[in-house]
Amino acid sequence: MTIKSVFNIGKASATGVGQVMFQQSYWTGLIFLAGIFWGSYECHLPQVAWGAVVGAVVSTIAGYLMDPDAPDGSAGLYGFNGTLVGCAFPTFLSNTWYMWVALVFCAAMSTWVRKAFNNVMAAWKVNSLTFPFVFTTWVFLLASRMMHDLAPDALSYPTLHIVLDGTLDTSFGSLVVYWLKGISQVFLVDSWITGIFFIVALAVCSRWAAFWAMFASAISLAVAILYHADPSDIASGLFGFSPVLTGIALGCTFYTPNWKTALWTVIAVIATVFLQAGMDSFMAPLGIPTLTGPFCIATWLFWLPQYKLQTGNK
Amino acid sequence: MTIKSVFNIGKASATGVGQVMFQQSYWTGLIFLAGIFWGSYECHLPQVAWGAVVGAVVSTIAGYLMDPDAPDGSAGLYGFNGTLVGCAFPTFLSNTWYMWVALVFCAAMSTWVRKAFNNVMAAWKVNSLTFPFVFTTWVFLLASRMMHDLAPDALSYPTLHIVLDGTLDTSFGSLVVYWLKGISQVFLVDSWITGIFFIVALAVCSRWAAFWAMFASAISLAVAILYHADPSDIASGLFGFSPVLTGIALGCTFYTPNWKTALWTVIAVIATVFLQAGMDSFMAPLGIPTLTGPFCIATWLFWLPQYKLQTGNK
Amino acid sequence: MTIKSVFNIGKASATGVGQVMFQQSYWTGLIFLAGIFWGSYECHLPQVAWGAVVGAVVSTIAGYLMDPDAPDGSAGLYGFNGTLVGCAFPTFLSNTWYMWVALVFCAAMSTWVRKAFNNVMAAWKVNSLTFPFVFTTWVFLLASRMMHDLAPDALSYPTLHIVLDGTLDTSFGSLVVYWLKGISQVFLVDSWITGIFFIVALAVCSRWAAFWAMFASAISLAVAILYHADPSDIASGLFGFSPVLTGIALGCTFYTPNWKTALWTVIAVIATVFLQAGMDSFMAPLGIPTLTGPFCIATWLFWLPQYKLQTGNK
Repeated sequence: MTIKSVFNIGKASATGVGQVMFQQSYWTGLIFLAGIFWGSYECHLPQVAWGAVVGAVVSTIAGYLMDPDAPDGSAGLYGFNGTLVGCAFPTFLSNTWYMWVALVFCAAMSTWVRKAFNNVMAAWKVNSLTFPFVFTTWVFLLASRMMHDLAPDALSYPTLHIVLDGTLDTSFGSLVVYWLKGISQVFLVDSWITGIFFIVALAVCSRWAAFWAMFASAISLAVAILYHADPSDIASGLFGFSPVLTGIALGCTFYTPNWKTALWTVIAVIATVFLQAGMDSFMAPLGIPTLTGPFCIATWLFWLPQYKLQTGNK
Repeated sequence: MTIKSVFNIGKASATGVGQVMFQQSYWTGLIFLAGIFWGSYECHLPQVAWGAVVGAVVSTIAGYLMDPDAPDGSAGLYGFNGTLVGCAFPTFLSNTWYMWVALVFCAAMSTWVRKAFNNVMAAWKVNSLTFPFVFTTWVFLLASRMMHDLAPDALSYPTLHIVLDGTLDTSFGSLVVYWLKGISQVFLVDSWITGIFFIVALAVCSRWAAFWAMFASAISLAVAILYHADPSDIASGLFGFSPVLTGIALGCTFYTPNWKTALWTVIAVIATVFLQAGMDSFMAPLGIPTLTGPFCIATWLFWLPQYKLQTGNK
Repeated sequence: MTIKSVFNIGKASATGVGQVMFQQSYWTGLIFLAGIFWGSYECHLPQVAWGAVVGAVVSTIAGYLMDPDAPDGSAGLYGFNGTLVGCAFPTFLSNTWYMWVALVFCAAMSTWVRKAFNNVMAAWKVNSLTFPFVFTTWVFLLASRMMHDLAPDALSYPTLHIVLDGTLDTSFGSLVVYWLKGISQVFLVDSWITGIFFIVALAVCSRWAAFWAMFASAISLAVAILYHADPSDIASGLFGFSPVLTGIALGCTFYTPNWKTALWTVIAVIATVFLQAGMDSFMAPLGIPTLTGPFCIATWLFWLPQYKLQTGNK
């Protein structure tokens, strides 16, 4: 193993962090990471940031081991699911070496599962988005209830009785905080400052991506408030992160920006909010989070019809 | 927008109502609607009938907006999912303008989701049946528990403890009522008179369809009684509506009627009863109804093997 | 119906029992059956063994009725799902003639559903494994809660609160018992002697299959103990049976044995343990068992990527 190959894996891993929001840029990935470090230390969960680093590197290596020559590696497509695995495990499970072993196992698996899912979906000209992360992480979070040494410290308790929690402070300052947290929660970070990091990181690579992240978070906040969705979830940005990804995916990644695709994306973003609420209910008896599942489903539903809206760069 | 195009959309919408039971006929659709109006006013839920109208029109328009030139429009294939969305929302959710906005949104979405699902299933030479309605409506019914202003007024309470409710009156008159309600519940209407409307509406377009609706409702009633299924569900026709659709779909729509296909359809109708019971249990912890999910799954299971039974008109 | 055709159906059914663990050999099937009879009589559940016989024969006949000329019949591919249906129904449901009618219906259906699922999965060069058994049996087990005469005698109670049960005796003798039960539970039999029957039966047809059954059961036992999974499940071999199938499937059926495929199979076997734990949690609110679902999912996930590991005999 040469210094060059170590450097290449580092670059591919950083690009993988950027690909979580569809940006093939290690600069974007590094600023994302800076934001994650800021937010996770602010929340006294430094293990989340280190998990992101470990997840990105492990999943990138796992990809190269099985497919050394594919262009996916340098494009960062091996690392984005593992990055999210690395954020999720320390967020929900207790910080033991059992958890870290499972994290490494799951991060590697997410890359191989991505290939499995992509092979399935290739027939319909869509891909698996972040669903490999969602699926494999669900498995381990659920497993934690059957395994004494993989304890579900920060999972919510399974329940049949959903209680909408508290009232919402709708002062302008608070709304801005919720709006920025909607963006930071893409990496499971609960910090408005991290949200600013992420907007900057997107703008470095694509102004359109930065615009759609901001616009989609705003739309989802408006819809969630209009329908009086769960106040504590709104305040933590939990109605925002999936719509943000839907917005970037449809608004400027899979379609070329124009008025038709913009309108289509807005509809998809609104649908994502209802999918988020619906999946929250669906998973309440299981006591596990939806992760980015609502984004995946919404994006597939609005991508699979393959309507001709002057499609473009993918 | 000319008077002619308004008239065409009306005709396509009425045909869409007919397509809920696979009949490409606006006369059938109009008699269905008459039955829905009768039953929903009888049950003091007029909003269900108006919901059906709104759902049919909105989903038809949504289809034309995205695919103006496809033959699906005039065939009524844009409208049938939306019609059912329009019946389901006012049945289960409280009658507020929040609900109507969500209904319009979901009815439009059901048409686009149909295209998404059909694109996926085309590879196997089957289609998505009423599953776009089922899926999108599940999302909003589940979402209603996380959104204060989309209240789940008439959803059953989530539970882990299924209690089989009461005893069944098996006098001949009662059995006839259950049998007819099995047909009326296709549109979520709990009225035996509406069941008669629906049989007439089917017979106008296809005697075979009317026969299979009646026969399948009778078979499902017999199986449900034989296995002592939940009495209150039997009495409301809730074990009948999915088998009715399975019967029409396999008995005379996707296969040409003959003895082999008839036997195959009877087996599928019986399987639908167990699927209905199984999905009822599956959804009990979620507190949402199966809608026509059992029909979709049963029909796929007996259609996907693509056995040669002297297939015919599709 | 001639004596010869009766004999052929018997042979095809016995081969079907063998195909549960991927062995196309009626000798293997017959020794499996001997083990099932031993274990089910030992556990005072003779109906399980007779269920296996009925299930194998019915599903084989059902296959021949619809596809008389396909090579699947003599290869035992009609019978393996039905065999498992026949083991599962008397294990979980009360021993009434209602249950036996449902068993026959479901066993037949499992063969047709296999064709449906295989048609779907053919595009990705994988097959449905034992999932037709899993899916159809789930439907009837769930249905048993809605039907008074299909009583769920031995299903666990639906719960949101998983309690890890007792402590584990880790003496060497106990570990050997758990290890052998991990193999016997493939046919839902809780007997270490049956586990020995099964190893012998596999060795008759394939030494590699016997090796992977033993090795996979050992790996899964180690992982389950390491992570302190539910002690009573470990002691009954319930963490072992799905990994055993994953091991045989990937280790020597779909891939040719070599070091690369062996390593890949070990990773898949470990993943199966976490999938088992995860699915246990997922199904706790429903109160139904995972059956061989974890094996199916794990094997698909590690098969679908279609990595080139010097593939071989399939």
